[in-house]
Amino acid sequence: MIFEFPEILACPTPESWLGKVNPNIETLLIDHALCEKKAALSAISMLYSYAKYDKIIEHMPKLAREELKHFEMVTNIIRKRGFVYKPITPSNYAKSLHKHVAKEPNERFLDMLVLAAFIEARSYERFSVIIPYLDGELAQFYERLCYSERRHYLLYIDIAREYFSDKVDEKVSYFSLHEAQLITAKDNLFRMHSGVPHA
Amino acid sequence: MIFEFPEILACPTPESWLGKVNPNIETLLIDHALCEKKAALSAISMLYSYAKYDKIIEHMPKLAREELKHFEMVTNIIRKRGFVYKPITPSNYAKSLHKHVAKEPNERFLDMLVLAAFIEARSYERFSVIIPYLDGELAQFYERLCYSERRHYLLYIDIAREYFSDKVDEKVSYFSLHEAQLITAKDNLFRMHSGVPHA
Repeated sequence: MIFEFPEILACPTPESWLGKVNPNIETLLIDHALCEKKAALSAISMLYSYAKYDKIIEHMPKLAREELKHFEMVTNIIRKRGFVYKPITPSNYAKSLHKHVAKEPNERFLDMLVLAAFIEARSYERFSVIIPYLDGELAQFYERLCYSERRHYLLYIDIAREYFSDKVDEKVSYFSLHEAQLITAKDNLFRMHSGVPHA
Repeated sequence: MIFEFPEILACPTPESWLGKVNPNIETLLIDHALCEKKAALSAISMLYSYAKYDKIIEHMPKLAREELKHFEMVTNIIRKRGFVYKPITPSNYAKSLHKHVAKEPNERFLDMLVLAAFIEARSYERFSVIIPYLDGELAQFYERLCYSERRHYLLYIDIAREYFSDKVDEKVSYFSLHEAQLITAKDNLFRMHSGVPHA
């Protein structure tokens, strides 16, 4: 299966990041579980902040349910492999992107949708490129999840277009640059969304 | 179908509350949707606060998914009936019960489990007693939900017994009194968990 590169991203995962996958499977799985939990929380937070938007009420509950299902699947794999699920320091990725979200409420809604789209798109891209570095069970698991992450990123972009048709492309370009900077910058931590690892 | 009265509750729903069901269907449905959203958020919050407890990691994601599914079902009914889903002032119920939760972290965990059990148990009881006041579609909907709410309240009690075996009964008695006080006290708002309505 060849996955298409998500068009909103400005750069692929660096080779040096891929070189760290194999010795860090436990860390990646735990970080992945934490990301799914955070994604579910973000979707539910949108239900609170943006209750007046029909598309949010329509789509966020199902999306949150899927993130929770993935959380269950990853924590099951973690348990089965004798690893221990526990909170670990998250990468700076989401926090750094969040600094570029506007304060003004309407623009903030657009930015939150675009930000969520980038996180999902990068997850999709990362899941697709780690597959060759994984054993059969994990390869199959991440291949299956690629479809969901792709669907999620497209959904966030669709919702953004529904409410901010003409402004979405510009925002995507804006976040695309910042996202690529994080992915290509040196990073002390190795995580699912981290940058270039230190040697 | 006759539903058993949940044994942790100290009092049934007052007749005067039931008398308000029929003219307040829209409010009840909207409040119910908001309660499901809050229940999903609470379950996910437990994943954050109590990550070291296996039973939390095992059960909260599925429970949160069910609450979200119920949220989707209620908001669909709201939309179908031409009502408008929107935030409304919540009852004081959960907030008032929460004042009795201990500050000390370990006891707080027990209290949060027991508190959640009471909210689910009262939902179960309320859903079961409103059925005769509803039209066919809603009666069927709430009958179906009774089974889930009952399962949820028993699950929270089971998890509490797993970690605090000897202390659960005492806590249940403690919260039971406070819960019954709220249900039998005069209440300005009419909501799914509100007290005795003003004439």
